Amino acid sequence: MRIVVDVMGGDHGCQVVIEGVKRALEADRKITALFLVGKQEEIQAALRTTELTDERVQVVHATEVMTMEDKPTTAIRKKKDSSMARAIELVGDGRADAVISLGNTGGILALSTLRLRPLPGVDRAGIATVIPAPDNEFVLLDSGANIECKPIHLLQYAVMGSVYSRKILGCKRPRVGLLNVGTEEGKGNELTQEAFKLCKQIDINFIGNVEGYDLFANRVDVVICDGFVGNVVLKTCESLALGIVGMLKRELAQNPKRILGAYLAQNALRAIKRRMDPEAYGGAPLLGLNGIVMKAHGSARERSILNAIRITTETVEHQINQTICEEIKGAHARLAAVKPAASTPGSS
Amino acid sequence: MRIVVDVMGGDHGCQVVIEGVKRALEADRKITALFLVGKQEEIQAALRTTELTDERVQVVHATEVMTMEDKPTTAIRKKKDSSMARAIELVGDGRADAVISLGNTGGILALSTLRLRPLPGVDRAGIATVIPAPDNEFVLLDSGANIECKPIHLLQYAVMGSVYSRKILGCKRPRVGLLNVGTEEGKGNELTQEAFKLCKQIDINFIGNVEGYDLFANRVDVVICDGFVGNVVLKTCESLALGIVGMLKRELAQNPKRILGAYLAQNALRAIKRRMDPEAYGGAPLLGLNGIVMKAHGSARERSILNAIRITTETVEHQINQTICEEIKGAHARLAAVKPAASTPGSS
Repeated sequence: MRIVVDVMGGDHGCQVVIEGVKRALEADRKITALFLVGKQEEIQAALRTTELTDERVQVVHATEVMTMEDKPTTAIRKKKDSSMARAIELVGDGRADAVISLGNTGGILALSTLRLRPLPGVDRAGIATVIPAPDNEFVLLDSGANIECKPIHLLQYAVMGSVYSRKILGCKRPRVGLLNVGTEEGKGNELTQEAFKLCKQIDINFIGNVEGYDLFANRVDVVICDGFVGNVVLKTCESLALGIVGMLKRELAQNPKRILGAYLAQNALRAIKRRMDPEAYGGAPLLGLNGIVMKAHGSARERSILNAIRITTETVEHQINQTICEEIKGAHARLAAVKPAASTPGSS
Repeated sequence: MRIVVDVMGGDHGCQVVIEGVKRALEADRKITALFLVGKQEEIQAALRTTELTDERVQVVHATEVMTMEDKPTTAIRKKKDSSMARAIELVGDGRADAVISLGNTGGILALSTLRLRPLPGVDRAGIATVIPAPDNEFVLLDSGANIECKPIHLLQYAVMGSVYSRKILGCKRPRVGLLNVGTEEGKGNELTQEAFKLCKQIDINFIGNVEGYDLFANRVDVVICDGFVGNVVLKTCESLALGIVGMLKRELAQNPKRILGAYLAQNALRAIKRRMDPEAYGGAPLLGLNGIVMKAHGSARERSILNAIRITTETVEHQINQTICEEIKGAHARLAAVKPAASTPGSS
């Protein structure tokens, strides 16, 4: 298995990324080649510091970096030799099986859609983020790729999210819910009303509309929404969880009695931290592309990169794109059987 | 000050509502009349049980109840004598200053828009929910009234939210942010892109786009979004907070050491619970109507009702509608000065 890592574009420089790569290579012998794409001198320096000498590593030089501030459409034209473009190219050319990047989400999306193309029957790629909840974990799709969604896109996300949940998270019969403002059919805006009608016709375990209330109550395994809503939900959850943890830390440090209490209860606090760890998956795949593309958090460090590589190799191994193609085809066929107009793939 | 409470339609029956009313009457002498609207015999029974004999109480009989399952448009036609309709009528007829209901949000919105009408220059009412954050609290507007928003609606919410934050929450110069998927201008969907252009032209402390990350980090005091996004955000936050608290309780109860730790640290846990209490405000106003309408949580109990009445009397006292009218007028005048087409009030 051949993995590409775009080591530039993260918040903490390429050193922490390469530390994560080192640990992944130590842990996983299935990786046969690992391409590090970026500025050669920086990569070489980081390889020396981390003492990474694994012969599976290949450095691919790229002179430019797409930054978080770059506007993707402009940067794609102007920065032809960005590490991100070069990294995705390796997958496009068939020289590698999957690519991981910490960079600009819009850039990854635009470049990989351009170079890899969507899978047959898929109109738009979506980002599938796994979010930990107290008693399960759920996939949030789309969490920020497709800001202006059409109902058929949400249907495709429902299929892809269901496949991802089964194949990668091991959920046997994932409950797929459409994120909405109420649970009854007919609730919501035009997008969700239409998407509901489509989703209930296809062969997934569609449980109908779900509300924000349902997300952390173990009532849904795959949450479908447009990229605007998904992105807001994802970031809001991160903000709230951080806020509560920060408050807890501050309150527990206020006097000796509380400090002792926190010390005695530390395993409880650790268990929660472990359970709700946003770094457990390290990366979120862009589903629906002709190739495996993983977006890692811009602020990812060693452990997060290690986890991102792990989830990437699992995604390659389970050949989810093959299953996605089959099930998307099946879904469109079903829709066509009911009502031809709504089902044309590529109708966006 | 004359307050109406629609005592029907809550999850726990009218008894808990009347208990809250009793405490509010004891605490607040500014209330000169309090109308309890609903099924007379149920109200009388609850008055006896709670031993509420205050002479300011007036019972108004209504034979029907709009339930949570009722479709508002249908229920308005079919249930002419619902407690909600009768309660809102009292404000519409000028017999009361404000109304509180625990019932169906869509019903309250439809009935109060119909009977009270929007304020001049306001196209649609919005629900302003106050959400506690570790170091401040913010107003989320709209949190579920206006599912299909236009840019001009968001501008009006920005003005109304700013007024509410100043007048009711005492925030001197509220930072008004537009909820979006990124902070740079130009981010987001058509709605947020257009709303951004409008908001930056008017005389509020508009800080531009905010992301989910900013919500619980004390970076914004008024969060503007369409009712779909706001509703999802509100319910998701409630779900996540409950999830974390539930997990904490479970983990802390697992063994004697942890139980002792929790005991020693109990004041820290209580401080957090107090700080993040979703019942602190008890009710969220529908801003932009010709009358004060407060939506209380369907599951509200005594304390929540008490708080809802308190916030209602404050809202009446501060005459926020007068200020909203002036500032909405000012905002539209400013927009008209820049670009006549975008500013027509009532353009929806």
